[in-house]
Amino acid sequence: MAAPEHPRMSDVAHRAGVSLSTVSRALRGAPGVSPAVRARVERAAAELSYVVSRDASSLVTGATGRVAVIVPFLRPWFFGAALAGISPELRAAGLDMLVYEVGDAEALDGYVQALPLRRNVDAVIAVSLDLDDRETKQLDDIGVPVVYCSQRAEGRPSVFIDNVAAAAAGTRHLLNLGHRRVAYVQSRDETGFSWGSLHRRDGYLQAMAEAGAEPLVVTDRAGQRGGAAAMARLLGAPSPPTAVFAESDDVAFGALAVLRRSRVPVPEAVSLLGFDDNDVAAVLDLTTVAQPVHELGAEAARLTARLLRGTADRAEHLRLPTELVVRRSTSVPRTSPGMHLHSHTDLRGRQ
Amino acid sequence: MAAPEHPRMSDVAHRAGVSLSTVSRALRGAPGVSPAVRARVERAAAELSYVVSRDASSLVTGATGRVAVIVPFLRPWFFGAALAGISPELRAAGLDMLVYEVGDAEALDGYVQALPLRRNVDAVIAVSLDLDDRETKQLDDIGVPVVYCSQRAEGRPSVFIDNVAAAAAGTRHLLNLGHRRVAYVQSRDETGFSWGSLHRRDGYLQAMAEAGAEPLVVTDRAGQRGGAAAMARLLGAPSPPTAVFAESDDVAFGALAVLRRSRVPVPEAVSLLGFDDNDVAAVLDLTTVAQPVHELGAEAARLTARLLRGTADRAEHLRLPTELVVRRSTSVPRTSPGMHLHSHTDLRGRQ
Repeated sequence: MAAPEHPRMSDVAHRAGVSLSTVSRALRGAPGVSPAVRARVERAAAELSYVVSRDASSLVTGATGRVAVIVPFLRPWFFGAALAGISPELRAAGLDMLVYEVGDAEALDGYVQALPLRRNVDAVIAVSLDLDDRETKQLDDIGVPVVYCSQRAEGRPSVFIDNVAAAAAGTRHLLNLGHRRVAYVQSRDETGFSWGSLHRRDGYLQAMAEAGAEPLVVTDRAGQRGGAAAMARLLGAPSPPTAVFAESDDVAFGALAVLRRSRVPVPEAVSLLGFDDNDVAAVLDLTTVAQPVHELGAEAARLTARLLRGTADRAEHLRLPTELVVRRSTSVPRTSPGMHLHSHTDLRGRQ
Repeated sequence: MAAPEHPRMSDVAHRAGVSLSTVSRALRGAPGVSPAVRARVERAAAELSYVVSRDASSLVTGATGRVAVIVPFLRPWFFGAALAGISPELRAAGLDMLVYEVGDAEALDGYVQALPLRRNVDAVIAVSLDLDDRETKQLDDIGVPVVYCSQRAEGRPSVFIDNVAAAAAGTRHLLNLGHRRVAYVQSRDETGFSWGSLHRRDGYLQAMAEAGAEPLVVTDRAGQRGGAAAMARLLGAPSPPTAVFAESDDVAFGALAVLRRSRVPVPEAVSLLGFDDNDVAAVLDLTTVAQPVHELGAEAARLTARLLRGTADRAEHLRLPTELVVRRSTSVPRTSPGMHLHSHTDLRGRQ
């Protein structure tokens, strides 16, 4: 009997001469299968190069009642908001939430390799890990469904925003106000995660190219510190920008702190645009590209529950909308070119 | 044989005629105990009114390898910081982290009553739940150690700060600058959690009484919205305060937004003091009482791991220090009394 090219669980059942549910139970280590039958099923699966995850959506019995949520970090606002979206939806589906903070790409590798996920959880929600192809394939093999939250993963269940289009729209907001020297601040830290930063940069570059404007990308550390350092560099540039697009609100806050300390008026001398609409953006009157983080989490959890019930497509993609929230940190540029020409009066006015 | 007043696991073992480890395994439902022996142990435990949690530190084998972390909310900064402190310490001890967001006191009741914690986790970390006596006693009976994080629980393992002393010190900072009309903004939301707010209010009242100053407490909703609403009320008071102490940085941000919108200069007309030193306080130049949230989480997790290894006192108390971080939102008051006497020039200067 020739092995089928894309073996299914039914092929394994046929070859081993057992029922589908016996294959399912045997391969996920559930009780009620004799050692002899288990060995037969495992041999048949191995002979067919059958990968358990291929039919993970058939493993709908919720053997553990737990879902693992993997996040790179726990402290930033984004992950609290995502977990707050995930938690009640898992609860509603009768699922407990295990949370793993992997910190960097290496820890993720360790997590995927070391944890006996097959016995530990029924599914995994990967939040904003920005995994590359190799890592995504690695996750394909852990034996339970993996739902991607805040990342588009081709052929896998995922819930995401269109970072490219959202960042292009944000950049056009600045261009349409009349800015030409628009800088983009992105972070690139040691963790190996890019946080959608690169897609947003692509959107920025696209909008700048469409407008025939010269792009200026500054890369620094993540978070407020990176934003502060990047803004300091921009203030020292030969021709400072009149508008700055920060990849996240947090980066924008760091930039804003430097602008305030330097008494550079915002938005009169420099317009500042963030990304997220986090819980403090409104207080700081920051114009920003809002993404629905809570809803990204909630939708990912609902999709997970549906996958475990067998009522979702295993390649389901769900794109949620973003929205430009205009506040007082962006405006038309001065007619005079940039920060060099502030009058003393203007500066005093910002103390 | 008379039942001992405070039965220990050894009393149960003696009465049932089995070893300590058999009692431990029988009472937590671990495998390897015959039904007959299990029934005998359970009968002995019942006759002695033995409560499993009394000797929870003996259940050191880590039957599930999981710890439940219960938080009222996931979204606020505080809980992300606490979880970020807890997570790596549990990981280092080989423990997985289940996270439960209980949202309000009723959900906590449901959680405690409904979840079969004995089989689900080895221990519980209760983060900033501000439980009352009844709730604390309820948690005593769930059969596994409960560690209190950011709450002092008498006779139970807990890691906390001294909210009373910290708030008194913050209030004295304002009084010593020369303020007399110092208001305290506390939140009291529908959730039933008080967030340490009441202890901080007590510290404020204590310092005000010591200084012979008239206290002014305003209560409103939680978070930025509550801070904004409270500040609006204070601006409309017969004699507005020259200094405002907000129970948290988040509440202070709401107050700050209203002050900025009203063009009331901070700190010239109103000094503003927060509590937390959260991740945005520095950007907003907010003077605040800093508490070590990450360390509270880390210490609670380490204490949990030690309890499970049997190397911690089950009533261990760990008080972590707070620190006043003086930034630019507090200063000596104007010589003129408060906000009524701003010159037009002053107001323009803040646009």
